[in-house]
Amino acid sequence: MSEYNSLPLVTAAEQFAKLPGIGMKTAQRLAYFMLNQPAEDVEEFCQGILSARKSVHCCSVCQNFTDGEICSICNDDRRDKKVICVVEAPKDVSALERAGGFNGIYHVLHGLLSPMDNIGPNDIRIAELMRRLSGDIDEVIMATNPTVEGEATASYISRMIKPMNIKVTRLAYGLPAGSALEYADDVTLQRALENRNEL
Amino acid sequence: MSEYNSLPLVTAAEQFAKLPGIGMKTAQRLAYFMLNQPAEDVEEFCQGILSARKSVHCCSVCQNFTDGEICSICNDDRRDKKVICVVEAPKDVSALERAGGFNGIYHVLHGLLSPMDNIGPNDIRIAELMRRLSGDIDEVIMATNPTVEGEATASYISRMIKPMNIKVTRLAYGLPAGSALEYADDVTLQRALENRNEL
Repeated sequence: MSEYNSLPLVTAAEQFAKLPGIGMKTAQRLAYFMLNQPAEDVEEFCQGILSARKSVHCCSVCQNFTDGEICSICNDDRRDKKVICVVEAPKDVSALERAGGFNGIYHVLHGLLSPMDNIGPNDIRIAELMRRLSGDIDEVIMATNPTVEGEATASYISRMIKPMNIKVTRLAYGLPAGSALEYADDVTLQRALENRNEL
Repeated sequence: MSEYNSLPLVTAAEQFAKLPGIGMKTAQRLAYFMLNQPAEDVEEFCQGILSARKSVHCCSVCQNFTDGEICSICNDDRRDKKVICVVEAPKDVSALERAGGFNGIYHVLHGLLSPMDNIGPNDIRIAELMRRLSGDIDEVIMATNPTVEGEATASYISRMIKPMNIKVTRLAYGLPAGSALEYADDVTLQRALENRNEL
């Protein structure tokens, strides 16, 4: 930014630039937008974010974000408490709930195993998951992302669970709905072939 | 967002969704990002924006954003005070300063004439510009965007200035019509400054 920009503007832009997917140019645009808003609106914006950050913590059962002691999914009597779906992050719970079709409960790991980034089993919430499995559990669904880290984490956890005689499953690999064969990558196509279903 | 998202998360996402160019999906991603940050970082983010909004106001001379009484450009003895470049918004000053090639001072209108949106001459800072012209001014450069409103505003103001025997010029049409100053590349902006025409 130019030496002629006033310092607070630069500060505001730098704060926006810390957000994921927001570069310096967009950050500057957002900063200018904010400076043009009524002071009450800017106050409301910051209060909304600050109070969210303050009131939200992790559900003591599933580790998902909640503002209560136990989240609304763990608290819901209609959900099947014998099926646990293990995901990497709270946003994955949102995605699965939006999609519908799952009536069990969740466990949020808050990360994936990644030796390259020095993230081991004690850095994500695996111990909390293991503690839950001492109860009456029928199935654990590993719903981590289909990436190297997601796969490694899923297989690490499944190896820990198997001796407990609990069924462990993994989300199916295959073609994304609405996509085209010609654009699918080789691994996806191979998996889609291997896991073909009878019609 | 799903009924299972906790309320503060929805509030935070709604605040982000108010920003220009940020839809509900990106807003939700940003809200999740914020909830994952340390509380101090979120505090710093909000403080940066709040204090910028509080300390920044308009320069009493050129109406550009500043945190002092008079902005650093108006205060700079090396700038030619006899040439005033009239722009729509503070971000346009940034764009022109970034491009370089202009050594005069600015006047920020904070809007453009737009009868469709009920914005008339009294809604933007034309009176403040006129007051400045009673001093020793050689030239006024109309640097509003090359859009319908920008053109209309430029010609309206130039008609007001001409009887005062001050030269009024317009940025050259090196700028692609219908675009915005803030996205123009530096060379285009410099050419447009060099080839300005008398109105």
